[in-house]
Amino acid sequence: MISFLPLFCHPNPKKVLIVGGGDGGVAREVVKHPLVEEVHQIEIDERVVELSKQHLPSMACGFKNEKLKLTIGDGFEYMKNHKNEFDVIITDSSDPIGPAVSLFNESYYKLMKHALKEDGIVCSQGGSFWLDLSYIKKTMLGCKEHFPKVSYAITSVPSYPCGHIGFVIGSLNKNQKFVNSVNKIDNFDIEALNLKYYTPEVHDAAFALPRWVQQSLMSVLN
Amino acid sequence: MISFLPLFCHPNPKKVLIVGGGDGGVAREVVKHPLVEEVHQIEIDERVVELSKQHLPSMACGFKNEKLKLTIGDGFEYMKNHKNEFDVIITDSSDPIGPAVSLFNESYYKLMKHALKEDGIVCSQGGSFWLDLSYIKKTMLGCKEHFPKVSYAITSVPSYPCGHIGFVIGSLNKNQKFVNSVNKIDNFDIEALNLKYYTPEVHDAAFALPRWVQQSLMSVLN
Repeated sequence: MISFLPLFCHPNPKKVLIVGGGDGGVAREVVKHPLVEEVHQIEIDERVVELSKQHLPSMACGFKNEKLKLTIGDGFEYMKNHKNEFDVIITDSSDPIGPAVSLFNESYYKLMKHALKEDGIVCSQGGSFWLDLSYIKKTMLGCKEHFPKVSYAITSVPSYPCGHIGFVIGSLNKNQKFVNSVNKIDNFDIEALNLKYYTPEVHDAAFALPRWVQQSLMSVLN
Repeated sequence: MISFLPLFCHPNPKKVLIVGGGDGGVAREVVKHPLVEEVHQIEIDERVVELSKQHLPSMACGFKNEKLKLTIGDGFEYMKNHKNEFDVIITDSSDPIGPAVSLFNESYYKLMKHALKEDGIVCSQGGSFWLDLSYIKKTMLGCKEHFPKVSYAITSVPSYPCGHIGFVIGSLNKNQKFVNSVNKIDNFDIEALNLKYYTPEVHDAAFALPRWVQQSLMSVLN
């Protein structure tokens, strides 16, 4: 979902950057999208990639795709050297405490904005609304400083705390619609992708938030 | 969700039966619906009701509403004596193993059909697709024996295994649409209900199943 939500919100996601995602799962999914031509991935910890190749081959298979170029290094430094390059940036990080905390800050969104082309889209792991809505709101406010359209979506992951995970998504396109936005790919093509989870209905459902969450995020949702 | 999914699928849910639901939570929600005039509840275990009143007052407050008539007894016996009476029957039971197993059988759906008025709707606790899809399919097949339209919906419940719960819903109206079906209540009225979770978008999202679930249930979904 962290891959297909932003990819299907973008009319032509030719060039994608993945920050983190060292297990290879996000890369495995992103390369499936027929409009994606190049995927660049910047992962700080080479050991994660090695261990995934060793123990999680069903995830790590993403690294084998010819669309993908993996770089080991710091995402912040990488983006400073890549301006106006990407259509979509996906950040697959750990939680917003400890080493990954900087990937949830306003300054990170500023950096992503500059690495994006016009109308680019970002999507990051965003935590569960059952656990800490204030963190989600803070991340969204940081995103909103640089992205005119911001939203929050959820999907079921039974092994995560509370059984789901959220995503903060931002777009530089001020007319972006995140719901009913699946485009350029008709249903026939979606069938051909043979995805296990994602459908256009699942895409839209991800943005249907419980009323109390919607009301709490009202000031940042648009 | 077990209350509002069937209530908002029915054009005029005047008279509702709740089977089980001894904590009072379903009754608390059902009575909020402005078109609901009478709610009858049949709970087999009086001790559950007593303990809820004692320890879960925020749930048990449902029993105080003047629309509600609570009967202690067996749901099967109760329905045998109430033919063509209800618009909606909600079964809020425990899991389909042990004492509640009979509430998931085809014979239970047959009994509910006879207790329902024309175009009546049933909704039951239906388990998680992450845990045992075969149970869900079996329950839906039992429902389909007597109800021309059957579907399965999900909602997030962080305290349940896998963080969500499903519902099996059936309608005697062969033209029933479960999605985009919220009717008779406009958005203004929904606002006035001051619900914490339910919105028309959350209603439709509940029926958006992951592709592998949708495909597994294809033969029973319609």
